[in-house]
Amino acid sequence: MYNEEFKDRIKEDLKKSLSSHRYTHVLGVAAAARELADRYGCDADTAEVTGLLHDAAQQLPLVVEDNKELRTFLRNSLSGDYKKSFPVLPAPILANGGLLHGYAAVTIAKERYGITDPALLGAVAHHTTGAEQMSTLEKIIFLADYIEVNRDFDGVADLRQAARRDLDEAVLLGYDSTIRHLLDQGKPIFVGTVVNRNAQIDVVRAADGKA
Amino acid sequence: MYNEEFKDRIKEDLKKSLSSHRYTHVLGVAAAARELADRYGCDADTAEVTGLLHDAAQQLPLVVEDNKELRTFLRNSLSGDYKKSFPVLPAPILANGGLLHGYAAVTIAKERYGITDPALLGAVAHHTTGAEQMSTLEKIIFLADYIEVNRDFDGVADLRQAARRDLDEAVLLGYDSTIRHLLDQGKPIFVGTVVNRNAQIDVVRAADGKA
Repeated sequence: MYNEEFKDRIKEDLKKSLSSHRYTHVLGVAAAARELADRYGCDADTAEVTGLLHDAAQQLPLVVEDNKELRTFLRNSLSGDYKKSFPVLPAPILANGGLLHGYAAVTIAKERYGITDPALLGAVAHHTTGAEQMSTLEKIIFLADYIEVNRDFDGVADLRQAARRDLDEAVLLGYDSTIRHLLDQGKPIFVGTVVNRNAQIDVVRAADGKA
Repeated sequence: MYNEEFKDRIKEDLKKSLSSHRYTHVLGVAAAARELADRYGCDADTAEVTGLLHDAAQQLPLVVEDNKELRTFLRNSLSGDYKKSFPVLPAPILANGGLLHGYAAVTIAKERYGITDPALLGAVAHHTTGAEQMSTLEKIIFLADYIEVNRDFDGVADLRQAARRDLDEAVLLGYDSTIRHLLDQGKPIFVGTVVNRNAQIDVVRAADGKA
């Protein structure tokens, strides 16, 4: 389904639309996503394509220049079958440009590459904020974004180890890492991130209870 | 208005209803609140009484044994004039017993001690979670709860210094301290705390802009 030709086409497009720094990051996420997919029993090609596309809207001029256009983009992202997963877009996401690019990338995945797989689109949409309930693919992309080989921040080594040991615990550490970073920077914390982190605590506890 | 006899009556009651550890903490908060009130131009007696009463519901049996009863308590706290300040009680607070004791203490302040001052009652209600917009008295009680002399946690010395330097920056550090503590403990973070912290960032930035 997602053959090398298809992936090469995406890469060619991204190489043109993204900064070289961002493009390098995207290749890192795609590789990390493949590795995690192999480890946790997901389709590696799907994970790689999701990783390639997760930041496809990151450096579109509209993200910077026109928030209204991004919102239109977003509404399109939420049309059709995919809309069922997101009947209501969380208001705080609408109010924050930085959190929107995952949702905008959904439209690119659909319109430019004809992707309709809701699992892939959901993982693209939620890669920045996570979600209260995430599929394995969503968790993989969320984490790959943190641990890809080019990332360098306090705690990234621990996060890489955790990702290889326990996907759910690693997702929780990912949320924690984002919140700590925002505390250190004195920046606002997106409430959805906290809601999703709290939900992930229950996921981890439920798994520990089973173990 | 709040004379020594009145304060002594409250202290006698608290000495009976609270554990000795909690009672010591309450005296510390009352003293810290007095000091901050003098520094930031609030009435010191009001601040002391607020500090004395902030945890008045902390160790009532109902807090532990019967959440329903606490909710009734809470509804009473929100009756009359005071209700205007809280037309809708935030649902996550209703869902979390630990966050309720400030609201429950409002009823004690009203029914047992005949206190009607909305500023005092608001400061009691919000001492655990803060609020998006806080009066100086609310900030003082919120902070006194962190920095009172018996407290000992990572960062308490910084917080004490900050409280004496800049009330709003110290409130922000207080929120941050709570969030970091919950991250370290792997415990859920109350979303309201994050909302209130984000609002406090704007307060601090606005003050910096003026300076």
